[in-house]
Amino acid sequence: MTSSVARVTTITSRSDTSFEDAIATGIERANATLRGVEGAWVKDQTVRIDDGRIATWQVVLEITFVLDDAGRSTESTAPGL
Amino acid sequence: MTSSVARVTTITSRSDTSFEDAIATGIERANATLRGVEGAWVKDQTVRIDDGRIATWQVVLEITFVLDDAGRSTESTAPGL
Amino acid sequence: MTSSVARVTTITSRSDTSFEDAIATGIERANATLRGVEGAWVKDQTVRIDDGRIATWQVVLEITFVLDDAGRSTESTAPGL
Amino acid sequence: MTSSVARVTTITSRSDTSFEDAIATGIERANATLRGVEGAWVKDQTVRIDDGRIATWQVVLEITFVLDDAGRSTESTAPGL
Amino acid sequence: MTSSVARVTTITSRSDTSFEDAIATGIERANATLRGVEGAWVKDQTVRIDDGRIATWQVVLEITFVLDDAGRSTESTAPGL
Amino acid sequence: MTSSVARVTTITSRSDTSFEDAIATGIERANATLRGVEGAWVKDQTVRIDDGRIATWQVVLEITFVLDDAGRSTESTAPGL
Amino acid sequence: MTSSVARVTTITSRSDTSFEDAIATGIERANATLRGVEGAWVKDQTVRIDDGRIATWQVVLEITFVLDDAGRSTESTAPGL
Amino acid sequence: MTSSVARVTTITSRSDTSFEDAIATGIERANATLRGVEGAWVKDQTVRIDDGRIATWQVVLEITFVLDDAGRSTESTAPGL
Amino acid sequence: MTSSVARVTTITSRSDTSFEDAIATGIERANATLRGVEGAWVKDQTVRIDDGRIATWQVVLEITFVLDDAGRSTESTAPGL
Amino acid sequence: MTSSVARVTTITSRSDTSFEDAIATGIERANATLRGVEGAWVKDQTVRIDDGRIATWQVVLEITFVLDDAGRSTESTAPGL
Amino acid sequence: MTSSVARVTTITSRSDTSFEDAIATGIERANATLRGVEGAWVKDQTVRIDDGRIATWQVVLEITFVLDDAGRSTESTAPGL
Amino acid sequence: MTSSVARVTTITSRSDTSFEDAIATGIERANATLRGVEGAWVKDQTVRIDDGRIATWQVVLEITFVLDDAGRSTESTAPGL
Repeated sequence: MTSSVARVTTITSRSDTSFEDAIATGIERANATLRGVEGAWVKDQTVRIDDGRIATWQVVLEITFVLDDAGRSTESTAPGL
Repeated sequence: MTSSVARVTTITSRSDTSFEDAIATGIERANATLRGVEGAWVKDQTVRIDDGRIATWQVVLEITFVLDDAGRSTESTAPGL
Repeated sequence: MTSSVARVTTITSRSDTSFEDAIATGIERANATLRGVEGAWVKDQTVRIDDGRIATWQVVLEITFVLDDAGRSTESTAPGL
Repeated sequence: MTSSVARVTTITSRSDTSFEDAIATGIERANATLRGVEGAWVKDQTVRIDDGRIATWQVVLEITFVLDDAGRSTESTAPGL
Repeated sequence: MTSSVARVTTITSRSDTSFEDAIATGIERANATLRGVEGAWVKDQTVRIDDGRIATWQVVLEITFVLDDAGRSTESTAPGL
Repeated sequence: MTSSVARVTTITSRSDTSFEDAIATGIERANATLRGVEGAWVKDQTVRIDDGRIATWQVVLEITFVLDDAGRSTESTAPGL
Repeated sequence: MTSSVARVTTITSRSDTSFEDAIATGIERANATLRGVEGAWVKDQTVRIDDGRIATWQVVLEITFVLDDAGRSTESTAPGL
Repeated sequence: MTSSVARVTTITSRSDTSFEDAIATGIERANATLRGVEGAWVKDQTVRIDDGRIATWQVVLEITFVLDDAGRSTESTAPGL
Repeated sequence: MTSSVARVTTITSRSDTSFEDAIATGIERANATLRGVEGAWVKDQTVRIDDGRIATWQVVLEITFVLDDAGRSTESTAPGL
Repeated sequence: MTSSVARVTTITSRSDTSFEDAIATGIERANATLRGVEGAWVKDQTVRIDDGRIATWQVVLEITFVLDDAGRSTESTAPGL
Repeated sequence: MTSSVARVTTITSRSDTSFEDAIATGIERANATLRGVEGAWVKDQTVRIDDGRIATWQVVLEITFVLDDAGRSTESTAPGL
Repeated sequence: MTSSVARVTTITSRSDTSFEDAIATGIERANATLRGVEGAWVKDQTVRIDDGRIATWQVVLEITFVLDDAGRSTESTAPGL
């Protein structure tokens, strides 16, 4: 149990095709700036309507990622997420 | 910001194929009787089982639609929803 | 599964005898203006006190009623509920 | 206790000055189409930001209005809310 | 209304393709050991990440199944669920 | 404090007369298959409507029953509940 | 609006006949020590089982009572509730 | 850390001008009968409507006050709150 | 069932060693001013940090105590809790 | 991912020394009748008071255990938990 | 829909004049270190009392800000928020 | 009131001995990368089981830390938490 601390961050992510694509997009974005992403909880699901049709599938995700043992953790140099 | 008031209404909608089809069905039905539908929050997801198989995918949606500036709002003449 | 969409509406209803009479009163009132009432969830129960005695038993109900396939749904001409 | 049933409806309302102005706007709009408005619960408060400044104060209100004893209730002819 | 009592049990179920496949897997598993499964509520949805990609779609389901009138109910001999 | 562990199980129970009769029916059914039933929490109350009248009073109960010190607990041979 | 402040206190109350009798008992007890009791919210309902039968119907009530304009409020000399 | 125990009490307070005035009124009333009031959480905000206008701004407050080390605490002789 | 009414009061209590010591401190304080304390629910647990170390373990407790049959209840003469 | 379904069951467990001992007791009891116990969530913590001292530390646990691929799952022959 | 991912961060902010000033202060502080701030949800409102008067109006805000398409997002070089 | 804004971040932390050790570990880790850590709320407590014994005590903490008046806040150069 070398690395025993993880952090939870909240993001919203959108897709124009499905909730599951929105989730995949959010995870991909998280991996671009964070190391050690372990999982995500789908906190909320909403759709936006345009001209009577579903234009956007949006999710709110709580993403968990492991912090390493060094001071600065597994976050990459880009702290965007 | 001419129209600053919206209304939220709750519906349940079902599909025999998927949750996302149930959402699309609910939105379509809302558009048939309401003007100005902007979005929806997926409040609950349930399935009904028949003979051991998933027969119905059901969602509860909270639908938001804009009220226009005239007295009667953007609801069409059919106030069904 | 011809009619796959239902609506949920919230009412409060009171009785001077019991919660169950308050529920029955609310359902009766809903049936007077809505078609297709299917059920209700008892969301809250409160009592009002007058001169040290319970004067009113009040319930908050979330009532579900089916929308038919025509545009205007099963609501009667009186859209009161 | 002639009129013992009330209905609860949810609206969102916005102002560019304050939450309390947003509430007043929502109540005013409700009174334009409903009779018997008794009160409202402030369910949520959000702000929208534009160019780094608060552009909109928005509230979600649950509005309670009394239904009269006739079939159609106290709603005026415009069922917009 | 011969059988008026049902039981609710909670399971978690996983799939490597989608939430809906995870739900179907859970229902299938429930039917293998329980009789009278009527429906399920999707209580939670999470994903597990492996090497930066979604490896597992997991759901928590509350499953309702009817108890028959005999003493032992509709559970089959295998009480696993 | 010989038996210090209890289990909580969730059931739904219905009556065509009242919520309290539905609770009594559920407790009776629980006692038919479980030993050591101690109490129940009324988690939810709903009514089902048929032809405009309340046809069913339904409750969701969380039932607590004590497990004895032997391996198999106080459940009778019929594990239906 | 001379007396604009009220207090909310929580009690539990039991009856061996019904929830509504338990509520009435709790209100009666509150009136014995408090002045200005206005109402109560039924926060929880539980039953206790003895020898397989419902022995006690118990409610948790949040009771609201008005404070008068004098310093000491409408509480009687017995501050028991 | 001489005084390590505090109590939390719930009040409702009203104003005819604003929520913030209602909060100030409630705090002032609490200070009239309690010593050691430290803070308050705004649990709920509602408005009451009269003749189509907001007549009352009402808040529910959870007030925290420190108990002193003597037996009777920091409450003044008037136990009204 | 001579004494069928109990009251619930909320306190916060702190310790510089552990949550369990904070609970014991709170119960001890409650017993100093109340008779008939039956139990407590741990509603919340927080820690306060000083110079990078945990300085205070704090709990919020909902304490239940029985009211006796006389008017003034089991509260001792010191109404501090 | 051979065994992809787990079950969640709720128990209460008590100790006369600490919450952590109560958790350990509950887990030990669960292992006596269930195979594949993976973890537990501490849903609630309460204490019972006797003669002014904490007599019992009680926890409510939601225990997760894996179901194996055979029909009957990993439950041992004693279905007590 | 070039930038489809946003992040949600939680802050607390205080003012000695009003909740709305506290919200404005929090938004201003967020804009000093984050780009793309879109809005905020008022999650909690508390007041701190000093010498019997309201000394501090405090809010908890959940702030949403858009992440840009580059790796490091719209956060400025100062990652303070 | 020079520094009036604080940030709340969520972490999970584990220990193989107790919840309180898990909390201390999480706070220690937070202090390694953040300045101005003030306190933490224990949001959730879970245990993981290995070979029938509690292998890990895990907590979810919401940690509050003060932001200083400069642009970049009190976070140290390592933005890991």
